Amino acid sequence: MPARAVVLLSGGLDSSTVLAIALSKGREACALTVDYGQRHRKEVDAAKRVAKHYRVRDHKVLTLDLAAIGGSALTDKSRDVPEERTLDEIGRGIPATYVPARNTILLGLALGYAESIDADEIYIAANILDSSGYPDCRPEFYDAFRQVARLGTKRGVEGRPVHIHTPLIRMTKADIVRTGAKLGVPFELTWSCYQGRAKACGVCDSCQLRLKGFREAGLEDPIPYERPPPKR
Amino acid sequence: MPARAVVLLSGGLDSSTVLAIALSKGREACALTVDYGQRHRKEVDAAKRVAKHYRVRDHKVLTLDLAAIGGSALTDKSRDVPEERTLDEIGRGIPATYVPARNTILLGLALGYAESIDADEIYIAANILDSSGYPDCRPEFYDAFRQVARLGTKRGVEGRPVHIHTPLIRMTKADIVRTGAKLGVPFELTWSCYQGRAKACGVCDSCQLRLKGFREAGLEDPIPYERPPPKR
Repeated sequence: MPARAVVLLSGGLDSSTVLAIALSKGREACALTVDYGQRHRKEVDAAKRVAKHYRVRDHKVLTLDLAAIGGSALTDKSRDVPEERTLDEIGRGIPATYVPARNTILLGLALGYAESIDADEIYIAANILDSSGYPDCRPEFYDAFRQVARLGTKRGVEGRPVHIHTPLIRMTKADIVRTGAKLGVPFELTWSCYQGRAKACGVCDSCQLRLKGFREAGLEDPIPYERPPPKR
Repeated sequence: MPARAVVLLSGGLDSSTVLAIALSKGREACALTVDYGQRHRKEVDAAKRVAKHYRVRDHKVLTLDLAAIGGSALTDKSRDVPEERTLDEIGRGIPATYVPARNTILLGLALGYAESIDADEIYIAANILDSSGYPDCRPEFYDAFRQVARLGTKRGVEGRPVHIHTPLIRMTKADIVRTGAKLGVPFELTWSCYQGRAKACGVCDSCQLRLKGFREAGLEDPIPYERPPPKR
């Protein structure tokens, strides 16, 4: 029987690649998407498309109104999403798109889901290199959460804790694009833009990092953009 | 300016006492209740009454459908809540009422809320002694989560992590009742029973532990019960 894994699937380039990685390792994947009150539905729709493409065993979409908690430009439409920042700026400091404790919350939900369906592993698309400087994308955070998973669950007490995998953690965005391309990830189904318009904006941090990845990997991003990022 | 604290308030005896403790220490308390798909609404209603009694600065009630994740008798009405277990049995093993990763999820939400409102502390009513043997009530779990709070948040990166307080962790249920009584906790407004009927059942683990606490503290529990726990 293949090991069962919960994959946190946002619908973006990174988490779709992580799903492909888990499947390539022979895991029986169950996807978990959290509709946490993002500015738009396009990400959740993309997650549904990707999960369907891969015919995952189960795709759970949980609704959680993090907008009620506040504190982020990603859940609060009255706050601006930064645009046209340089890649240097993107790598520095914690931006307005930081969602307080988001990955702790997502991992907690994935942990509960994993225990409930007796999954052995969680896969999450955290990445420290070409990321937006979020604290909950750092390797040391995941080490701390592994302790939480070991000590705070029935499985942990039974000596078979849920393992937490972060296969992208030290990859560049170009590495992620190359890995995804090799595994046949349907990039055209994914959505990374922080805005929710018909086409990706091309200038938010997430678009810029994605475009940089494709550029450096020497590949073309198949999704349409409103405008290319500023040349520098 | 008083330190601000998020208090996880379920509406039970323990969390209501924790709210009273935070207030007695001069904290500006904001209460967080998570309506996670418990079998009944009585607990959430009790939380609202207690928060109102104490006129907390803010009471946030978040809805999260943990029943969709499954795995617990507390969220799944097709599973039985254990009744009439002896106190020895209650202290042994992890019961069917365990909700996978519940306290990790609750703490994650409290952490996000705390960061968002710039609260310095979280108070949670975990208790290792007279509890039902849940792994996420043990002190070592909270130590691990403190690391998560330090490493996974903006406040942590800024060197001012959110502190996590578990003032009941090593109290007996009698200690909790005595502490609550001393602080004037309105016990009559609280609800601990796992069932959601007009009166508390008296025989689920939660009722039995509560009644034991009052008995050992030499006080009377003001809420009505259907039947007393079995004499042994």
